[in-house]
Amino acid sequence: MANALRRLSKCGVAGFLPQVFSRHGPRTLPHLVCQQRNNSTSSKIKVDLDPSTGVAVMRMQSPPVNSLNLDLLTEFTTTLEKLEMDKGCRGVIITSSLPKIFSAGLDILEMYQTSPEHCGEFWRAVQEMWLKLYGSKLTTIAAINGSSPAGGCLLSISCDYRVMADNPRYSIGLNETLLGIVAPYWFKDTMANTVGHRTTELALALGRLYSAPEALKIGLVDELVPEDQVVTTAAQTMGKWLAIDENARQVTKAMMRKPTIDKLLSNREADVNNFVSFITQASVQKSLGMYLKMLKNRKG
Amino acid sequence: MANALRRLSKCGVAGFLPQVFSRHGPRTLPHLVCQQRNNSTSSKIKVDLDPSTGVAVMRMQSPPVNSLNLDLLTEFTTTLEKLEMDKGCRGVIITSSLPKIFSAGLDILEMYQTSPEHCGEFWRAVQEMWLKLYGSKLTTIAAINGSSPAGGCLLSISCDYRVMADNPRYSIGLNETLLGIVAPYWFKDTMANTVGHRTTELALALGRLYSAPEALKIGLVDELVPEDQVVTTAAQTMGKWLAIDENARQVTKAMMRKPTIDKLLSNREADVNNFVSFITQASVQKSLGMYLKMLKNRKG
Amino acid sequence: MANALRRLSKCGVAGFLPQVFSRHGPRTLPHLVCQQRNNSTSSKIKVDLDPSTGVAVMRMQSPPVNSLNLDLLTEFTTTLEKLEMDKGCRGVIITSSLPKIFSAGLDILEMYQTSPEHCGEFWRAVQEMWLKLYGSKLTTIAAINGSSPAGGCLLSISCDYRVMADNPRYSIGLNETLLGIVAPYWFKDTMANTVGHRTTELALALGRLYSAPEALKIGLVDELVPEDQVVTTAAQTMGKWLAIDENARQVTKAMMRKPTIDKLLSNREADVNNFVSFITQASVQKSLGMYLKMLKNRKG
Repeated sequence: MANALRRLSKCGVAGFLPQVFSRHGPRTLPHLVCQQRNNSTSSKIKVDLDPSTGVAVMRMQSPPVNSLNLDLLTEFTTTLEKLEMDKGCRGVIITSSLPKIFSAGLDILEMYQTSPEHCGEFWRAVQEMWLKLYGSKLTTIAAINGSSPAGGCLLSISCDYRVMADNPRYSIGLNETLLGIVAPYWFKDTMANTVGHRTTELALALGRLYSAPEALKIGLVDELVPEDQVVTTAAQTMGKWLAIDENARQVTKAMMRKPTIDKLLSNREADVNNFVSFITQASVQKSLGMYLKMLKNRKG
Repeated sequence: MANALRRLSKCGVAGFLPQVFSRHGPRTLPHLVCQQRNNSTSSKIKVDLDPSTGVAVMRMQSPPVNSLNLDLLTEFTTTLEKLEMDKGCRGVIITSSLPKIFSAGLDILEMYQTSPEHCGEFWRAVQEMWLKLYGSKLTTIAAINGSSPAGGCLLSISCDYRVMADNPRYSIGLNETLLGIVAPYWFKDTMANTVGHRTTELALALGRLYSAPEALKIGLVDELVPEDQVVTTAAQTMGKWLAIDENARQVTKAMMRKPTIDKLLSNREADVNNFVSFITQASVQKSLGMYLKMLKNRKG
Repeated sequence: MANALRRLSKCGVAGFLPQVFSRHGPRTLPHLVCQQRNNSTSSKIKVDLDPSTGVAVMRMQSPPVNSLNLDLLTEFTTTLEKLEMDKGCRGVIITSSLPKIFSAGLDILEMYQTSPEHCGEFWRAVQEMWLKLYGSKLTTIAAINGSSPAGGCLLSISCDYRVMADNPRYSIGLNETLLGIVAPYWFKDTMANTVGHRTTELALALGRLYSAPEALKIGLVDELVPEDQVVTTAAQTMGKWLAIDENARQVTKAMMRKPTIDKLLSNREADVNNFVSFITQASVQKSLGMYLKMLKNRKG
């Protein structure tokens, strides 16, 4: 517990979600809260660990759409690692503090007109994030309170459980082919482990984005709830997971996911090279350019 | 046929289920019946082979809940081996002669406060049972006429087909984590081969027990029928399976299941060692002790 | 484009399906059509490539039931290879020009009372067809306008998408065990990639043929439409697939299917030997003979 409190002050935890855990722990812990990180300009993730429940909430707060750029990915991985090592933390809820969007996925600007070296560095950060999240010994629940395409979908399906806002205008899916790029095999494996081979094949080929109700139907998310209850429901579900024997749950999770993780671990550099040589092709760069232009026009 | 009759007298077959096979064979075969085994105090399984159909019924009869202890597992495997070698036997229906329970699963007393050697011996018997049943060339149908948690579920999903009593109070599932223990990878593989990766992941993590209707919905069982028709329905289904060319069906079954079986065959001792070192941990022993205490209090 | 036209005249394309592509391209292209192949007595497949859309239709026309004999298989593979190399072709719709039947599957006469050498040659042709079709970089859509058992089912599930005539009298499935033979592991893998392990296990063991509505329910086909709209619907669906970035779609497809294809590629001759030694068994030949007799009697 002392350890948990020490970490708390380190991670910079704000009591920003008292309503969620009000039944589980102290309503406010003003003396525990330090705003350091949240006030830091570099912080793209707000972390709130409730020491009474052992549940942290990681809230992505990188406007306008929580694009997974190198900084956000690195902070995500570091934050998760810290929580993993924190004996006071047993579960993490991942959500967004932005309206209507969970995460728009990998930041195209990291791979458009950048050097092969930068693309490689970026891709290693994507790998690292997935390896840590998919293999986390913590219970991880995605509270998907907005759209979640591409890398946002990967992030979601790498968690243990997914609660999504019941709003048909929010969509989720690995839509990489729509941008002229390709979800690598470990994105594919993660999705196939969630919805099966055939649905994944169709989804990836066509770059399909599923509305929240469609996503529930195919099993891409586990539960739909009204938008304002996404995080509270995630917290309630977390309670059920944390009631399970910790050791048995962790060993079981590792057993389920190790083969998929090992496939990447034994081929990380080959996967980086594949990505870099694919993404730096002139034709692919052109597709990305067109996509960026389209996004710009849409906003305008 | 002569062979079949010889085996019949050996196995100790009682005509205890004439109504099942009345359309297929002689109603009673009093001169064939020998009660030796059934009357033997050591017999935990009642075997009834109908020579006219080639279908045997294995009825577990080890009160109070058909716990899979070393004796029952060994007798199960031996019985199945004998039926496999019996040219007069082509299919086996596995059921329980006890009310409300198919099998309560692995007997915790075999792994609680026993020596590592005993735990190892016990685990080899569990492996042996699964290897024989999942890889049986016979058509195997589980007639699940009661609850079937943990090892009882494994036994069920290792068969070719599952008929369960349509009673929402009966449940089935690999609930090992609820006891603080872990279903090993070959339990997991068997379940994933039945209901897919994601459902298995959720089920094992949370130690979920599914009511009969829920089990049907996720495909953990194939069919629900009124309780008094479980074995008769299994026998009717068996008729359809036995109508298929024997050689083609066996080769097909081996093709479907060999990869899963080979995974254990090539790592049996490592799996035994894993089990023994896991189960003999002080914390795991404590969990088992608490579970046993809870069971005791519930009865009291 | 010049290349496309050159290939067109080579393949012998007839504008036999103007209604399908009327919205996409010129209604008729009489100057492009050459009837060479279609008029050739050896042609068992009618090919129609619309240069304006890049979509070819391959129509099997081998009465009475499009049995996949050595000739049809070889022509199928050659045709697909030519279309693959044709830069003007991006997608293929595979259908039948015969009423009520898509394809009756592998021709039993190629394996009944023929030499081991012939059986081996035949099996290599089956492998070749599957390797080319399942691994095709083209978008492949099966327009299943009639029954599609055994090899006809394999052909269907090797495509990217399946549209079937909404007629409960049409059936589809890998029913090999009904004939006393066995669908090899790569048929099994293809089906498991489509409908999952458990459904495949049940289907193969029992040699199940699914009516069109049942096939839709288990995901063996993707869509049912009235019989006269099967090919037009396939063409509309093709439009959606061709709207996806070509490179990204091809890389994604290869990623999804390569592991399954590699399993056969690394063991082709062993698979041929397995097939030959199985099919030339006296008991299997007897089963095939009985099946042929039954077919004959049914017609008589």
